[in-house]
Amino acid sequence: MPQLLKSVLIANRGEIALRIIRACKELGIRSVLAHSEADANSLPVRLADQAVCVGTAHPKSSYRNPQAILGAALAFKIDAIHPGYGFLSENADFVEMCEKEGVCFVGPASHVIRSMGDKIEAKKIAHRAKVPTVPGSIGAISDYQEALAVASDVGYPLLIKAAAGGGGRGMRVVRSPDTLKKDLSEIMSEAEVAFNDPSVYIERYLVDIRHIEIQVISDGEQTLHLGERDCTAQRRNQKLIEESPSFALNPELREGLAAAAVALCNEVGYRNAGTVEFVFDNIERQYYFIEMNTRIQVEHPVTEMVTGVDLIKLQLQIASGIPLALRQEDIRLRGHAIECRINAEDPDHAFAPSPGTIHNFRAPGGFGVRLDTHIETNYVIPPFYDSMVGKLICWGNNRDEAIARMLLALDELVIDGVTTTAQFHKRVLDHPRFRDGQFNTAFVASLLEGSPA
Amino acid sequence: MPQLLKSVLIANRGEIALRIIRACKELGIRSVLAHSEADANSLPVRLADQAVCVGTAHPKSSYRNPQAILGAALAFKIDAIHPGYGFLSENADFVEMCEKEGVCFVGPASHVIRSMGDKIEAKKIAHRAKVPTVPGSIGAISDYQEALAVASDVGYPLLIKAAAGGGGRGMRVVRSPDTLKKDLSEIMSEAEVAFNDPSVYIERYLVDIRHIEIQVISDGEQTLHLGERDCTAQRRNQKLIEESPSFALNPELREGLAAAAVALCNEVGYRNAGTVEFVFDNIERQYYFIEMNTRIQVEHPVTEMVTGVDLIKLQLQIASGIPLALRQEDIRLRGHAIECRINAEDPDHAFAPSPGTIHNFRAPGGFGVRLDTHIETNYVIPPFYDSMVGKLICWGNNRDEAIARMLLALDELVIDGVTTTAQFHKRVLDHPRFRDGQFNTAFVASLLEGSPA
Repeated sequence: MPQLLKSVLIANRGEIALRIIRACKELGIRSVLAHSEADANSLPVRLADQAVCVGTAHPKSSYRNPQAILGAALAFKIDAIHPGYGFLSENADFVEMCEKEGVCFVGPASHVIRSMGDKIEAKKIAHRAKVPTVPGSIGAISDYQEALAVASDVGYPLLIKAAAGGGGRGMRVVRSPDTLKKDLSEIMSEAEVAFNDPSVYIERYLVDIRHIEIQVISDGEQTLHLGERDCTAQRRNQKLIEESPSFALNPELREGLAAAAVALCNEVGYRNAGTVEFVFDNIERQYYFIEMNTRIQVEHPVTEMVTGVDLIKLQLQIASGIPLALRQEDIRLRGHAIECRINAEDPDHAFAPSPGTIHNFRAPGGFGVRLDTHIETNYVIPPFYDSMVGKLICWGNNRDEAIARMLLALDELVIDGVTTTAQFHKRVLDHPRFRDGQFNTAFVASLLEGSPA
Repeated sequence: MPQLLKSVLIANRGEIALRIIRACKELGIRSVLAHSEADANSLPVRLADQAVCVGTAHPKSSYRNPQAILGAALAFKIDAIHPGYGFLSENADFVEMCEKEGVCFVGPASHVIRSMGDKIEAKKIAHRAKVPTVPGSIGAISDYQEALAVASDVGYPLLIKAAAGGGGRGMRVVRSPDTLKKDLSEIMSEAEVAFNDPSVYIERYLVDIRHIEIQVISDGEQTLHLGERDCTAQRRNQKLIEESPSFALNPELREGLAAAAVALCNEVGYRNAGTVEFVFDNIERQYYFIEMNTRIQVEHPVTEMVTGVDLIKLQLQIASGIPLALRQEDIRLRGHAIECRINAEDPDHAFAPSPGTIHNFRAPGGFGVRLDTHIETNYVIPPFYDSMVGKLICWGNNRDEAIARMLLALDELVIDGVTTTAQFHKRVLDHPRFRDGQFNTAFVASLLEGSPA
């Protein structure tokens, strides 16, 4: 039986750094936190077994700096690097550097990250695995003639998407054949500039959709699915609220999605934790694979709360070469969990970041309430990073109970000194359409426009 | 179907007041907190829908004052009173007053509380229900001759216990027949003075025991058991650490204990939540009923964490006359939960109370960590009440994981300004005997004496 890793370098900050430190400590793994100058006084730095400053506040100098991170791991003779999410977590070149230097990367192999990071390649893999994808071109569109042919199959409105885009960037809706030529040429130029890659592809534009994703974990031999997360409550393609299970699925659809996710992982030889993302068409009640995130995700706690499975610990065990002790039949969902991302942003001013000093912080508590956060009283939110200051996750025996508990926990949460999205979450959760589960990805925008629900 | 109560008066303070307020809010029940002058600025007062000051700091004037509490309930036309634990929670006279005034008491009927509050009567009920009790006299001992006869059956050492005692008070170990006469007469006099009731009874003195209790809940028609709690880690008969499930039980013993607890409840016509307490003889591997607590207990969260059942909500639903929707087969235990009572006490000075101002408070957090507490930064711990400032409960997939998580959470917990038992808990949890589960009720005392483990 392989031994557990002895030491892990954590190449991240904030709540996810703290999450990984906790998992390491519980497993008896030495945790070394690579941090920027801006985070030198943060709670994760104090709680890690060791901390090493790898650069200035700018992510390119520190958290996003492959040489600095790998160099620290080598200098301190650390067994493995956990990238968290964001930053270097899906950087195939960085992972390849780690592989060459013999430093274990807590995640899949570089070639898997590279394949899944290329949207066109990922779509081809899905086709091979017989996983449904959004109707559209199989690969990159080479010219206007090809686009026209695909478009007549797919129908209008359609989407032109940059292969290297994501998170809402590099994407355009085309509503009629009249503008196709112009739109195609413009988005290709934009993609060239933004991503250094002009490749684009075409997809049907689905208007009434939910976002549903499957958590998977694989030791390379066995791939398990751990239920779905519904991340339909989004603002500008940024997830706001996630929950498990999804309101929209029946057992048959749930099984189909899970089987599709596992088939995709097996096709690509996936290892470690990952998330297979789908859109779910409310009208046709059909799901389509859109992309795979080859890392742990922000919203992983909702899965942990309903399954009881500690995903970060499993990541570390798999990275150690220890096979999964769990079998699929061991994964049972209990109750319902909801996560609200608490951002230091001002909902009344277009969600502008609201950095500053937290004069008083008090966490909510009690049964079914989990808060993952690095903030504390007198913490200064640095302006250099994303604005998430914590994740509040509430569990209940059913969705209604989880919502009621979340509303209360949001009320109890005290973060004085900066404006946060906590109260905005209440508006979403308390809305009849949210409570009834009758909403799609446009719901939050409609709420913000004040248009009729 | 009966309607849920519309309003509840909470006749308690601290973390349990907050716990009940949260349950009420989640259920949409109006929460009115009856509090003392000393608690006027407390978090529960601010979070309750309404707060009413019923007396001065002294418990006899406020939390333990039947007239003040019932008077407030009547004045504010409140449907029911939740007593929490301690104070009026097991005061049969108070419950009888409520019954007469038509105010619902969240708990069993007064006659049930009275029966179970009398240790001799409780033992007789156990005998009728065929629940094993510690070998000894069935009822009160009337004189020395009877004591001598019982003692020769029971053997030495034996215990003489005051019928009205409890929690370690009114109890004496007799090691030989030579002192029996003198001990009997002295403890009867003491009981007369302390409890206004000279009744005593005799029990075998068990030297190597664990304390194991069964959580039950009944709607009057159906009585469910929700697994056991092991409360063997005690200091001077005060519970320090509780966990579920118990290390000591196998499935057969677990089933026997649960069946005994349910039989006892059915014998006495029990309704609402309760705890049936047993001692478990490590040598004979036999359990004996000792007493029933006819209220919610401090350590109820460990049961909530492993079963997913919200006990306070069930109490409120049952008090509303709503039958249990759960069946016994719905109650499944998942993983392991441990609770540490965090007291503002100084372990280095005989656990002397350490009231004062908390200059900085930060809760631990993350997966499997629950903190029930009313404290906050700048909170002043009043010297008038018990010294518990919070309950830290950690869940894990197994006992080892729960212990590791608790050790970490205790490290993360910040309560600056007063001395607490947090670090002392680490000493207990980290001890090989605790980790191996090989300990009895004398374990903590042996640790404090520094005697060999």
